[in-house]
Formats: sequence, structure tokens, C-alpha cells
Amino acid sequence: MASLFKHLRVHQIFGANTDVGKTILTTALVLASASRKTAVHYLKPISTGPLEEADDHHVKRYGRHEGSLISAECLFRYKEPVSPHLAAKLSSGDELNIPSDETFINAIANRIRRCAANIREPAHMYIETAGGIHSPTLSGTTQVDCYRPLFLPTILVGDSKLGGISTTIASYEALLLRGYIIDAIILFRDHYYRNWEYLNPYFLERGVELFVVDPPPPILPDPSKNFTITKSYYQSIISSEEEDGMSAIMNHLDTRHKNRLNELESMPRRTLDTIWWPFVQHGSIQKEENVTVIDSAHSDFFSVTRQNTLHDKLVNENVLAPEFDGSASWWTQTFGHAHPALTLAAARASGRYGHVMFPEHIHLPALKLAERLVHDGPGKGWASRAFFSDNGSTGMEVALKMALRAFSLRHKYELEGRKKKELGVLGLKGSYHGDTIGAMDACEEGVYTCEWHNARGYWFEPPTVGIRDGDVIISIPPALSGSTRGHDTKAESLSWVYDIEARLCSPLALMYGSFIQQTMGKLEQGGPKLAALVLEPLVMGAGGMIFVDPLFQRVLIDVVRGRRSGPSSEWSGLPVIFDEVFVGLQRIGMESTSALLGVYPDISVNAKVLTGGLIPLAVTLASHSIFQAFFTGNKADALLHGHSYTAHPIGCEVANETLSLIDKVTASKNWKAAQAKWDRPDGSLGKVWSLWDPTFVTELSKLERVDEVMTMGCVLSIHLKDASAGYSSNSARALLEPLKRCMDIGPELSSAPGGAPFGIHFRTLGNVAYFMTSLNTSPSVISSVEDRIWEAITE
Amino acid sequence: MASLFKHLRVHQIFGANTDVGKTILTTALVLASASRKTAVHYLKPISTGPLEEADDHHVKRYGRHEGSLISAECLFRYKEPVSPHLAAKLSSGDELNIPSDETFINAIANRIRRCAANIREPAHMYIETAGGIHSPTLSGTTQVDCYRPLFLPTILVGDSKLGGISTTIASYEALLLRGYIIDAIILFRDHYYRNWEYLNPYFLERGVELFVVDPPPPILPDPSKNFTITKSYYQSIISSEEEDGMSAIMNHLDTRHKNRLNELESMPRRTLDTIWWPFVQHGSIQKEENVTVIDSAHSDFFSVTRQNTLHDKLVNENVLAPEFDGSASWWTQTFGHAHPALTLAAARASGRYGHVMFPEHIHLPALKLAERLVHDGPGKGWASRAFFSDNGSTGMEVALKMALRAFSLRHKYELEGRKKKELGVLGLKGSYHGDTIGAMDACEEGVYTCEWHNARGYWFEPPTVGIRDGDVIISIPPALSGSTRGHDTKAESLSWVYDIEARLCSPLALMYGSFIQQTMGKLEQGGPKLAALVLEPLVMGAGGMIFVDPLFQRVLIDVVRGRRSGPSSEWSGLPVIFDEVFVGLQRIGMESTSALLGVYPDISVNAKVLTGGLIPLAVTLASHSIFQAFFTGNKADALLHGHSYTAHPIGCEVANETLSLIDKVTASKNWKAAQAKWDRPDGSLGKVWSLWDPTFVTELSKLERVDEVMTMGCVLSIHLKDASAGYSSNSARALLEPLKRCMDIGPELSSAPGGAPFGIHFRTLGNVAYFMTSLNTSPSVISSVEDRIWEAITE
Repeated sequence: MASLFKHLRVHQIFGANTDVGKTILTTALVLASASRKTAVHYLKPISTGPLEEADDHHVKRYGRHEGSLISAECLFRYKEPVSPHLAAKLSSGDELNIPSDETFINAIANRIRRCAANIREPAHMYIETAGGIHSPTLSGTTQVDCYRPLFLPTILVGDSKLGGISTTIASYEALLLRGYIIDAIILFRDHYYRNWEYLNPYFLERGVELFVVDPPPPILPDPSKNFTITKSYYQSIISSEEEDGMSAIMNHLDTRHKNRLNELESMPRRTLDTIWWPFVQHGSIQKEENVTVIDSAHSDFFSVTRQNTLHDKLVNENVLAPEFDGSASWWTQTFGHAHPALTLAAARASGRYGHVMFPEHIHLPALKLAERLVHDGPGKGWASRAFFSDNGSTGMEVALKMALRAFSLRHKYELEGRKKKELGVLGLKGSYHGDTIGAMDACEEGVYTCEWHNARGYWFEPPTVGIRDGDVIISIPPALSGSTRGHDTKAESLSWVYDIEARLCSPLALMYGSFIQQTMGKLEQGGPKLAALVLEPLVMGAGGMIFVDPLFQRVLIDVVRGRRSGPSSEWSGLPVIFDEVFVGLQRIGMESTSALLGVYPDISVNAKVLTGGLIPLAVTLASHSIFQAFFTGNKADALLHGHSYTAHPIGCEVANETLSLIDKVTASKNWKAAQAKWDRPDGSLGKVWSLWDPTFVTELSKLERVDEVMTMGCVLSIHLKDASAGYSSNSARALLEPLKRCMDIGPELSSAPGGAPFGIHFRTLGNVAYFMTSLNTSPSVISSVEDRIWEAITE
Repeated sequence: MASLFKHLRVHQIFGANTDVGKTILTTALVLASASRKTAVHYLKPISTGPLEEADDHHVKRYGRHEGSLISAECLFRYKEPVSPHLAAKLSSGDELNIPSDETFINAIANRIRRCAANIREPAHMYIETAGGIHSPTLSGTTQVDCYRPLFLPTILVGDSKLGGISTTIASYEALLLRGYIIDAIILFRDHYYRNWEYLNPYFLERGVELFVVDPPPPILPDPSKNFTITKSYYQSIISSEEEDGMSAIMNHLDTRHKNRLNELESMPRRTLDTIWWPFVQHGSIQKEENVTVIDSAHSDFFSVTRQNTLHDKLVNENVLAPEFDGSASWWTQTFGHAHPALTLAAARASGRYGHVMFPEHIHLPALKLAERLVHDGPGKGWASRAFFSDNGSTGMEVALKMALRAFSLRHKYELEGRKKKELGVLGLKGSYHGDTIGAMDACEEGVYTCEWHNARGYWFEPPTVGIRDGDVIISIPPALSGSTRGHDTKAESLSWVYDIEARLCSPLALMYGSFIQQTMGKLEQGGPKLAALVLEPLVMGAGGMIFVDPLFQRVLIDVVRGRRSGPSSEWSGLPVIFDEVFVGLQRIGMESTSALLGVYPDISVNAKVLTGGLIPLAVTLASHSIFQAFFTGNKADALLHGHSYTAHPIGCEVANETLSLIDKVTASKNWKAAQAKWDRPDGSLGKVWSLWDPTFVTELSKLERVDEVMTMGCVLSIHLKDASAGYSSNSARALLEPLKRCMDIGPELSSAPGGAPFGIHFRTLGNVAYFMTSLNTSPSVISSVEDRIWEAITE
């Protein structure tokens, strides 16, 4: 992916427009490097038009006298003098023969790697793009987007002509939108338009250095005279000692290269000195090598520094390596990192509103998002209102406040004085609803809870689902099974387990029902007064990737409501809260769990995927009957909870874009293909499915060290055998440690962009390792991650 | 500010570059409008170059046959054929004579208003910009930024030539970064480069419609022949019925105009049907007129719809009006809305990282922010670590967890079992630390608290500071004064009140000290076991803009610590938490309150201003001795609190940009001038100061209806006389209701961008009205808001 070598300084050259002097200035850079006795490689990935006019020939011609210091090459050459995407089309005759972005990027990455491998002294490399920054490349992707996985430091050749101020700034902004490091802007000194006079302070204010170079002489008709004057032009600008001339540019680029390396090298130490990470025992993470420095990220990969290449003398190796984001950055990533559509969505909302006041006000991004979520999203069929906050935890606190109020109001005569404060919730053991103290109080006491924790409620130990030794097993806990060791039931298939309607009349359902009723009867005698049923439907994530038998959750809801569930405008029994922060919005292959469970909640919470993995935003959806509990004429009865950035337009706009992109991804070929693999034996669509391969999952479950495996949608969870299970266990982390290393794969290309060997970042929960893809992770990437997991566990 | 009229459809025309056919296509638009018998006004705000070649002359020449339907004009004309900023410079001779952006924008807004006022039938207006989108306008600001306050619907003329794909897309993105509504992109049909074939699907995917128009014939040397062929060219493209020709463009622009009006009209109803606002009693806000629709925002103003212009037949009036954001959008706005530097900061972090994993990882934006905050920001002198979360409330929960752990660990032998759960905090009555339940538990029970609230601690009623009848008064509450009615002390000046070191040996300080010691002695006998001192230094915002006597807070800290405060590496007595979410980062004119109070906290929290008013992010800073309480070899001892988007790169990068911009604003002339107004009588710098005028504040405090006034930095707080004070009181809201109306100011221009009359959005806390500016609100805007407040209260 990203390329950075200690000894090879690489720059890509973008143009603010076509015909701004990119080739002249790149040649000048090449010659300037060579004049310092630095070996320099010029790469023109794509050349179109007549061979004798090609840019690499220009470089070779004028660099001839430098002998072996200069090498120049072109990777894809087309003789048609048109835009690369047209040239590729014309010459291939068949769209299928056009090199893909992946092939294109791999070819460039490969050239950089080979070039770096073969040098003994510091060297330079210049990669000249074609046309303007947004000119389409071979596949049709525009260049700024296509080159992005390589994340090369950038030189922008500005436009010195009329209109050039505008095109230069617009190009600079397009580069910024892709996060590029812009090391320099270079411009010809046009004495009529004098664009540099304007652009110099403009970019200085923005921290980017601008250099001005004398323009080349007019082209002469006589080729040999032309050669002579052009050659002497190059000599004059290279030898110029002006403070913004070629010599200054060389020094500047060298400094920028060195500074970047130094900064990357310094980051682990500085991090250990200043940062307080969440969920990290700093006492165990004290070495610089324990800090992963993320220099940039793209698609499903971080680009991280390999600290040994910085410290050691490995000057020919890439300082940066791809690292697969195997936790989807704590369950947030939806379409991979730095997705341009999300960046543009954020930018347009920021440009139109920034943030604006929300109470008693409205803006389009929030209104559209609320309508979409309520009427045509997870709230479809039951929700009436959307309430925005900042994260899953605050979303759940809002949900709890809603439920507590609704319950208290209906039972106001029984709940005088302190009794309201003693209300509790009904839930499942292993629940986790976020880190704020109120959300924590809706869960049992445990390792995550703090001094103020007050476990308010009662939690059932639920039956769970998993794949063990190739079989789908429902594990019934002791209390439910009536035996001290619990009881396992083999199920026909995953699809069977999740076909709840079919199981509702099964003996197991009856057993669940009577157990729940008995327990609740006892609770009414002496337990806490319950005010809400709070569930993470199907999967309890932070509790250890516990896949609950969905039948148990369904029966629980039915019992609590005192009826077989169905649409109703009034909540009954207890308000039911679905915490879908983790499972919602297609993370486990469905928009909401309601359809599968066959019941609607009264309140639900979404976050994480909601903003496609970019920024914090949460929504609490509520039914009309919940909303009514706050609807009076008295200001103090309102829901008095709201954070400063409530419904911030950037978050809402990014969420709207995310929901549109989700619609596309769920209709994509990759999804259909993955779903097909999980079809029932009779060929009908399974109730649940996964982006992970069914055979891989089954075989994994048969391994000696593996206790149980489970998967749905993007999630793969592996419970390892470990006597001392629990959060403090390090067994999963220790066993899978090899995944973090970049595997040497020889001359083969990996499935990471650029083809370099990659490491895998993953998170564990005690003895549980889990892996999570984005919604659009490519099958080839998933397949190579599967291979690596297999190797790590079987080794 | 923004312009939108029912009967006048206005578009601004931007070019992807200079010489892309902007004038030709704008003329075609004018002629197409006229051909439909629609009156049309063409405006060229700036024209440079020879008069006879001016664009408005071109329009007039070819529009002559349409008679009175077409009018054309130019506002600023310069004969030099160079970029506007150079032309203005050359012709003015003096930089001071160059029209400012404000003058320029007001002139255009004025023309639009007049044009709209004079029509009887629906009409069109086209405003043609100069050069490319980023070409500098008169003052040197680039056009996309300069025109932004008008927020006009935009037509982008694409570039049909070689390189035009790139310049067109880059221009589109630059427009998006400013949030413009792009109604159409128009392009010439160049049959050689065929850019439209690429751009059409590209923009279709992004929801923007592209139209292709035949190019004009080549210019002939003979003027009369040239006129004839050009005229027939215009006639042919206007009468063309091609599906993307001029006729289709007209229909499309009409539809977009109509849809926008309809959408704005529908928004209040839809909002009332779907949105659940925080802190709003929906039972009291049921009318559409109660919903303020924010169409866009810029600097300190929202652009809101005037619903009567939408419903009624007020077709000649602007549908949009500026509304001064008088609550700084719930205390978040720092440099006004939609600040381009913040948008670009968000965009570049999004482009480089998106969001990435934080625990055990690091990225530059987070590291730089942490270092800046700890070493050279509010943590300077005492903090060692930065912990990131999402908002002030979660930041405070983290702070509480830190303090509870540190205290519990030091007192572990006294705190067996349940005692840890009963720990409380020491604070002040009126405190507010955010809406999550744990943060609420650090405050007294009140209107904001929910069923689960558990007031954990003890809260002193503090003495307060305010300006009453022109005098600075310290109000001592009953318990402290020993009398049942409390006691007021007149202070020499505000500067005297905040000169804490000088007051430390005063009798009042001794009285505070002995009262605090006595009370704490009693608490030790029977009160809750206290584990932390939690303060909002200087001002308690949500509690009702209570300005606490700073001496009391200082003495309280000293007593709790058992010593005169000073830098110490170990916390003593109780960990001291400063909740600076509201007061920090220059909101009240200082980076942190530590310098003024003369003490450092052990833990502090910042949010709101931290991200310049764009997106949620909070930081909890902690001293080394607090950090050490979590530093062991045991994973379970770590601070187990972290939200999914912890330290999200966009938030951190925007915060870094914000801190840089704050450095500029605090050194600005406007700040120096405001500070000078608050100098002490002897001319020395006051300890506290305000952006609000001291005379205005003093006079306000003398008004009949006003009980007390107080101000610091951006904040102005007005306590109104009201027997039934408290959160449920509506007195402030009712009295100041007239501020919401747009005041008719006749032919005068207001200080809002564009000069239109503006309303004022403000928030109240019961009988307290407060007003808050951005850090960079202009003196003229503040002054007109002061006038409006004066009128409202004196009327």
C-alpha cells in the first residue's frame, strides 16, 4: 500500500491542469537530482500518443549526459493521443482487457519496491501522472482517487496562466480531500499573469510551500536548435541559486522526506508519554514496539510503520506496511477507511452549515435522516420519532430515560418517592450497553464497571448458539436445563436455529417460556421492580461475542409483553429496548433484527455503522406511545437530555450517504455470492449468512484449540479453549499474535492494495478472538485473512 | 444573507476555468428565459477589460430583439484586462479604496432585492462570476468563498476541452466544500474530447445533472457577419428540443427552484411529525411557525425561512432571512458557521484516515492534539495525559472514574465492599456536568435529573458575582452570611473581584475558609464519604449562568487540599476536577481558568469550543498521579471506558486547526480593542474582560426589569426579575420574544452579510437570558445585537 523508504525519496507529480508544464518540471526535478549525483528514477505509469513525443523519452533525451544516474520508464503505453481511459479502451478492444485499478497500482508499487531494493545510496524517484489531478486513468477512476492507496508524497504543478489561480487552488483542495501530503507546489514564473504573487501568501497561510521556476523558452521548429536551447534552459534553472529555484526545491523535498521519517520514528515514544488510551493497561504497553503508528488508511487497511525499518539500517525496505483492520476499527468501519463519498458528504454539510442549533430548529440532513430511519429503516413499522445523540452509550442512556419515564408514568400510583429510583431492567447476562455509568447500571457488575456501579435489575443467563466440531449447537445453561452442567442440543442447521416462527411451538420454546415465567414470578415476590426489557438482539458483542439463541429472546419478549408480539401502538408489560448499536444496519447481514425475531421493540438504538465509520453519531428511535410519556404542556416534563452537537449536520449527512451506500452494497454481486454459499441444502435462502466462507468456519470449529466458532454478516468469532476464560485472559491474543506480523509471501502479491505482505490487526475479548470486515471487503481479502487465521491456529 | 424569492429564480454561474464559455452559456440562459416571455435580469458583478468587450454588453447586444424583457448591468467595472483583484488594485491606487467583501456582497444582495421587489410575474436572474471558481475577487478572497454568504443556487459551466474532465470535477468539489446547491453543470459538446461522455455518468452517480450544449461557431473577422452567425447560433440552441439542450435546462432549473421552495415549506410539518428534540416540550411546540428551518449558515448567522413568505402571496420578498446565532448554537460556535479552514481540516483528515483504531495505535492528529493540550494548552504546568471521548458529559464521566479510582486506591483499607459505591463528590449548588446519568449523579437532584438519579455528594451554595444597578455586587447566600436573607457586598470593580491573590487575605476569604472547614467537619461526622471536588470554575452555565465568586472556589480548593495550592505532582485531600467544557478555550476570554484562580486541577475536561463548533469531541486531561492509579500489570485495572470513535482523526484535526485559529483571534485587533475597553481605571489590563461593551452592560443592569447582568469573554447573561424563577419560568423568553423578529430597518443595511434585517436566536434558562458570540464576531454585529436587546427590554 503506501510507500516510504529511507533511502528512496519518492514523489508523485500531479498537474493543476493539462499543459501546465508537468513534464518540463518533472524533468527538471530529475535533472536536479542527478546534478547532485543522486541516482534518480523517472516513472511515467501511463503514456499516450506517439512514442517519440512520450514524456519518458523527453527525460531520457535531456538526461543522457548524466549517464547511468538517470533511468526512465513507462508501464502502460498507448499510441492514441487521448485521455488514458479512452486510449485503454481503444487499444484493448474489450473492456475486460483494460487493466484494473488494482493491477495498475500493483504495477507502480512493484516498480517502487524494485527500485528501492536495488539502490545502495540514497536515491530519488519521480512519478509523473497524466493530465490534471482528476483526469481519468485506465479504468476510468480519476487519478487522485486511483493513486490514493499508494499514498505518495505529492508535488502539485500549479497553473501559471490566466485562470491558473483558480485551477491551482481547486486542485490543491481535491488533493486535500484525499488526505495527500503535499510537499510542494511548483509554478512557472509567468511575468504577465504573476499568479505566484497571489498564490504564495495563499499557500503560506495554509502551510504549503510554493516554488517559482523560470518558464522554458518557446519551442523552435529546428529540432537540434530546440534541443540546445531546452538543454541550456534546464542547466540554467538547475544551477540557479534563487531561494525558490530548483536547488531550494531539492533541499526542501529532502527535508520533508527526512522530517516525515523522523516524525514517524518519534511517534511511539511521544504516544507513550502523553496519550491515555481507553481499555489499555499502560503498565503492559510500555515499549515503543507496542505502539502501532497509523500513517494513513485506505479501504480495509491501515498503513502502519514497521519500526524495525526506522530504527535499523533497513534502508531498502518499505517503512510502511499494510495492516488489515480486523476489528473494523472497533466495529465502526462500513466501507473501509477514507471513502471519498463519505469525505465529500462531510465536506458539503460542513460547507453548508458547519454545526447548527437543533432544538426547535431543523436542517435537511437531520430531517432526511430521521425520516429515513423512522419510515424506511430500522424504525419501519413501529417507530414514530428519532432522537439524536453522540454515541451508542448516550443513545442507550436516552433509551433508558425514555423507558423509565414511560413505565413510571403508567405506574405512578405504585411508585411514590424512592421507589422510582429503585426501578431496574430485565436483561441477559453478558449484556453491555456502553461505558457511561447509567448505561453500565443496566448491566451486571463486572470488570468494566466502576466504583459507582449499581446493577439495577435482573439478568437471565441465556442459551447460546455456536458451531462446535462442525455441528450447530444450542447450549442451554444450568439454570434453564435444570442440571448443574447445562445441556447441549444439536441443531439441524444455522438456518433452522434462526427460523423462529417455526420453532415457536417447539418443546424448547415451551421450556423457555415456563422458565421465564417462573423466574419473573419469583422476581415479583422479592426482586427489583422492573421497568424495561433491555436486549442486544442476537449477539452480545462486548460481553464476548455471545450469540444468543434467538428463540429465547423472542419468548422473553412475548412473556414480558404478556402476548404474542405484533404491531401495537401501545407498549405493553415493559417497554422493550433493542440495543442494535453493534448488530444493526447490516453488520450481521440484516438492517434490523426485528424481522428475524418477528417482534418490534418500543425503543431502539443505532450508532457505529450509522455514520459509515467516520464520526460519532447515535440515534434513539421511539414508538408513539413512548413519545407520549413526555408530551405535556410542562417544560420540565420534556426529555431533558441533549449534547452540544446534537444532530450535527456533518454526522447526519454522512449517515445519509452511508445508508445510500449500504443499499448499493447489499445489492452487490459479492453479497449475493456470499449469501448463496450459506443457502439451505434445499437451495432456499438461509435465514442468516456470512461474508466468511461456510467451509472455513466449519473446519475451524473442528480444530483442537478451538472451542466454538460463530459467524454472521461481517463478524467471525472464535472461542478458544482456555480454562481461565474471561476478560483478563490473554489466550486468544497470545495464540493469534503471529497474525500481526507481515507474512513474507515471496514474489507473490498479497490482496492488499499495492500487493505488499500485510499484518492483521485484531482485538480479543479474553479467550474470544473476533474478526470483522467492512460491508464491502473484497472476497480475495477475506479469503487471505481466513488463510492467515487458519495458519496461526494450526501452527 | 442567502437569497431566495418565490417569483425570482436566481442562479449564479461559476466556471470550471476561465475561457470555458461562461459568457456564451449565460447569455444563452438569458435568451432562453426571455424566449419563454420571462423577464430576465443579467448581473455581472465585476467586469474587467475594454467596455465594448464586456460580458454585459454581449448580453445586451444579443438580447436586443427581446426588448424590455432583458436587462443587464455591471456593478464594478475596471478597464484593465486582468484578474479582478489586480484590476481593483490598479484602478484604486490605494488598497483602502478597494471594495471589501462585505461591500461587494451587500451590493449584489441589494440588486437581487430590488430586482425581486419590482417584478409582477415570475422572473429569472443570472449572476455571472469572473474567471474560474477560485479566481480572486476584488478584495482578493477567492470567489467561491466571497460569494458564499449569498448562498445562491449554482450553475457550473464545465470545461469541454483537453483536461476539462479534471478541472470540472475539481471545481465541483470546491463548490461542495462550501456547501453550495449545484443545480446544473453545463458543458459544450466538443466532439473531439467528448468530456461529457465521461462526466455525465460521473455526476449522475453523485446526483447532479449535466447538460450538453452545442458549441458556438468560430469567431469571424467581420463584425456584422460574426453577429449574424452568433445570433443564429443562439437561436438554434434555444429552440433545440434536445433532451439536454437549453429548453431542458430551463425546465430543470424551474423544477429545482420549485422543489426547493416546496421542500422548505414542508419541513416544519415533517419535523413536528418525526423529530424528537432534546430539551423541548413538544406539547408546547406544535405549530409549524414554532419550527425554525435552517437552510444554511454562515459566519454568525443562520439563514432561516420566513414561513409567511412561503405560505402567503409574498412573492416579492426574500424567503430567507438572517438569524443571529445568539446561543452560539448551544455554546459550540467559535469562528462562526461553515468556516472554510475547519471544513478543509475535516476533509483532509477524512481523506487521509477516515476513522482509525485508537487503543494501542496512534495517528498524527490525535498525538499533536494531545501534546498541544497537555504541554501548551489547558494542561500546561500540571497535566501529563490526554484521554479522548465524545462530549462534555462523557468527558466528565471519565474524569469521575479517574477521581473515584485514585481516591479508592489511596483509601483502600477504609473502603471495603459497598463503601466504594457510596462515595460522593463535593461541589456547588447549580452545578451541571452533562446529561448522562453518571455525570448527573455528581449534581443535586433537580429538573434535569431522571428516575435513576442518585445525588452523590454535597453541594455548597456559593456566593456569586453580578452587576446590579451599575454596581459590581458579591451576593453572599444565607448559610454563608449567617442571616436568613443573605448579604450583598459591593465590590470596587470586576477586576478587583477576579484579583484573587490580592483577596486571599481579606476577611471574606477568612470567612469563606472557616465556613467551608466547619461544613466539612460536619460532613465528616455524618455526610457522604467524599472522593473528589468537582467544579465548573468561574461560571456554572447550564445551572443558570451563575458567576461564582472566584475567591470562594479558590478557598474551597485550598481547604480541600489542606494547603495553599501550588504545583505538586501528587493530588492531595481530594482529586480536584475542573469542568471547563463551557468556560475553557477562550469562551470567557481565557484559555483555562487555572491562571486566574491560581491553582491547577488534577483532572480537567474540555469539549465544545475544542472542535471550533463543528463536531463532537472531548478530552479529559489528567495529572501523572491520577494516571498512576490505573497503571499496573493487570488488564482489568485499566480505565475501561472508550467510545467507538475515540480520538477520531476528523475531530482531532479540526481541534488542531481550531487551536491555531484561536491563537490568531486572541491576538487580533478586535480582541485587543475589546480588552482595552475593560481596562482598569488606572489603564492596566483588567483581570477579566468581555466582547460586550462595558457601558452597555452597566446601563442594562440599571433597567427596571433587569435583576442582574454579568459578562465575560463571549458571554452576556441577563437575570430578569421574576418571582417564579427557575427552569420552568418563561419570563426571559417571553420578554425577549421580539428579538426573533426581523426588524424592518428601512433602506439601511444591517450588519448581517448581505445587509438584510435579521432576527436573533437566543436561549433562556428560566428567568435568565444569555447571549453568546463566536470568538471572532465583528464589533458591528455585537453592537447591533446590543441595540436590539436594549430595545426589547426597554420597550
